[in-house]
Amino acid sequence: MNQQQIVQIIDKVIAEFQGKNTIPVEASGRHVHLCQKDVDILFGRGHQLTPKRELSQPGQYLCQERVNLIGPKGMLQNVAVLGPARPETQAELSRTDARIVGVDAPIRESGNVKGSPGLVMTAGTNFVTLNEGVIVARNHIHMTPEDAERLGVKDKDEVDVKVQCGRGITFNDVLVRVNSRFSLSMHIDFDEANAVDLMPNTVGEVIARSC
Amino acid sequence: MNQQQIVQIIDKVIAEFQGKNTIPVEASGRHVHLCQKDVDILFGRGHQLTPKRELSQPGQYLCQERVNLIGPKGMLQNVAVLGPARPETQAELSRTDARIVGVDAPIRESGNVKGSPGLVMTAGTNFVTLNEGVIVARNHIHMTPEDAERLGVKDKDEVDVKVQCGRGITFNDVLVRVNSRFSLSMHIDFDEANAVDLMPNTVGEVIARSC
Repeated sequence: MNQQQIVQIIDKVIAEFQGKNTIPVEASGRHVHLCQKDVDILFGRGHQLTPKRELSQPGQYLCQERVNLIGPKGMLQNVAVLGPARPETQAELSRTDARIVGVDAPIRESGNVKGSPGLVMTAGTNFVTLNEGVIVARNHIHMTPEDAERLGVKDKDEVDVKVQCGRGITFNDVLVRVNSRFSLSMHIDFDEANAVDLMPNTVGEVIARSC
Repeated sequence: MNQQQIVQIIDKVIAEFQGKNTIPVEASGRHVHLCQKDVDILFGRGHQLTPKRELSQPGQYLCQERVNLIGPKGMLQNVAVLGPARPETQAELSRTDARIVGVDAPIRESGNVKGSPGLVMTAGTNFVTLNEGVIVARNHIHMTPEDAERLGVKDKDEVDVKVQCGRGITFNDVLVRVNSRFSLSMHIDFDEANAVDLMPNTVGEVIARSC
């Protein structure tokens, strides 16, 4: 058991004390997922992504590898790559990030990139031109079937989650994603995290199922 | 009547059609207010701030003058100055901005700067060292006594405001400020605007008085 897993267990115990409807809230920074073909182009044929740190969702990891993202108006340097490789390459940015590179990225569920704008991705002197794949990730909650039962929700439900931190905000229509491989966690982007002035170990409270 | 005032009237008419509890929502970018002493230091003795564009609140204006803000970690260039001069200089940043310059700015009502961090403000080769005055502005609603009556609230009340735009968010504990010189408008910062993916002519709905 690593340090992060211990922190997650502590978070769950705190949530349990605070009430049955609470969920740990995490901010996801800008990152990309790469398909193996793009890994080959950017880092060399047959290259395998190198795990650096485990993430809250089991099997997902931050990689040693980094990329630059170049759009019509600017560049984001040293952007995180999350592993393992996926069927399709995508870049998940905040609205602030998207404005810096100059792309009008839609708010989408991860993996739903059809018709989204593209950009150029570089690593050293290698580059990939993405024709589509730049999105602002829609906020969502990962949970196990046991969590779903406890919270009275099911996969693809939308719920309202109140987060009281530096500022109080209720996120409406947050997507519920249920899978036995998931770990309970609500993911928001950095614009949303800044809007609520998120601090470590913050929990959200499911206050209603959206209509 | 200038173009902006016409737009405001149209916003009000739209709000009237959409329901009695709606309020136009505006994003406030980073800006500073200057005391006359700091205007003198930055722009020359006896200099008067030059209006460039009127703002939604009567008597307030964007100035021709601009400043740079320098903190321990970085600089924000070409920052807006709002006029007229005030008794105390203050800088209103988003959490994103505050992180760029490297100051841990508290979330405060405008004017309440006691104990907040400072920074260095420059214009050309002139500079002012602020010992305090850097805040993240607390979201709030400007309204007239007539608006307050219609909405069933009073000065210093806190209300929950639901904004349904690119993303749905309810801002909790939004401060109500009532003054006959105000024009009805909810002010949020750019982190909050990005979190809700704010678009022009968006209105918020007062859904409850906070407890």
